[in-house]
Amino acid sequence: METKIPEATAKRLPLYYRYLNNLLSANKLRVSSTELAEAIQVDAATIRRDFSYFGTLGKRGYGYDVHKLIDFFKKILDQDTLTNVALIGVGNLGHALLNFNFHKNSNVRISAAFDINPTIIGSIQSNVPVYGMTQLQEQLQDQQIEIAIITIPAAIAQEVTDKLVQAGIKGIMNFTTVRVSVPQTVHIQNIDLTNELQTLIYAINHD
Amino acid sequence: METKIPEATAKRLPLYYRYLNNLLSANKLRVSSTELAEAIQVDAATIRRDFSYFGTLGKRGYGYDVHKLIDFFKKILDQDTLTNVALIGVGNLGHALLNFNFHKNSNVRISAAFDINPTIIGSIQSNVPVYGMTQLQEQLQDQQIEIAIITIPAAIAQEVTDKLVQAGIKGIMNFTTVRVSVPQTVHIQNIDLTNELQTLIYAINHD
Repeated sequence: METKIPEATAKRLPLYYRYLNNLLSANKLRVSSTELAEAIQVDAATIRRDFSYFGTLGKRGYGYDVHKLIDFFKKILDQDTLTNVALIGVGNLGHALLNFNFHKNSNVRISAAFDINPTIIGSIQSNVPVYGMTQLQEQLQDQQIEIAIITIPAAIAQEVTDKLVQAGIKGIMNFTTVRVSVPQTVHIQNIDLTNELQTLIYAINHD
Repeated sequence: METKIPEATAKRLPLYYRYLNNLLSANKLRVSSTELAEAIQVDAATIRRDFSYFGTLGKRGYGYDVHKLIDFFKKILDQDTLTNVALIGVGNLGHALLNFNFHKNSNVRISAAFDINPTIIGSIQSNVPVYGMTQLQEQLQDQQIEIAIITIPAAIAQEVTDKLVQAGIKGIMNFTTVRVSVPQTVHIQNIDLTNELQTLIYAINHD
């Protein structure tokens, strides 16, 4: 599967995939782009354009076959293989993420956590083992982990990021407020909750 | 301040604001768009265009005056007034958000939490009072809260959203996997962590 698709389309794939699985659970075997549009609040034209990147998957007047779409997206999203990710920093937010550990049918799982707090190193938190930072390189290699979530203080964000890059990490989900620097080969997904909330406040105040 | 600016620009304002405050703490009184660009990883041309929406604030060869920029963004972002927000659902993620309660200089604060669990209703969690869902309308009105964060099970997301809209909420930060329906006058900010992680995995696998 080597189609080069736009980033905005890629971002919607997991959303499509999750909703299609909901449809299947409800025994719904076909769906129109209009129905999809209403459910996931993306306009129908965008959905049809997104789907067109993968070839013609729908039939006019019939809609899309839910089974076929799911099989198709499953392959693109590599949902057949479980992806293990690491969590760096088991503070409040870290704990919440361990407990949440992503959705059951997402095939993503935090399999190792890391912290500097000696009272939790060596313990199992929400079914996930917590290692010391000195074990980072070894564990990431042993567990073939390529993705890390960082929920650490801003002051050490860059330092820890450098260690992760050194250990071969290819993607970082960054919950800190720091925009960390990484080589071009490493992907960063910034989740800045304060920023999101302020954007919402700004939108409301400037309506 | 009634300039109509693009949404993408609006989204970057809190980021600029936060970074400028860091500069001030470090006694740095001027900054170039290139320096800003490196620190927050937005390209310099975008920064200059963003700033141009607010009039010419920088001087060629001198850069921008940090004090002036902060004063300016503070006004736009209504950072002079504290915005109280409500949290609906004090589960794991809810607890983590209460504890986090946004950045000190963001002027946003969760001032009321709501849940259906009788063992925490009436208690104070991380300095925030927890009310029952029956007190929702009354408390939101009394505290003039217009923004709510929902960290509740997907199954009740729409039902709770309807109650929030009825109670006069203008903006919702949605951590559930459901794309809730709201009237056009209500703003929604979806934070779908599973989706963000899958997008990252997709990017890495398709490099």
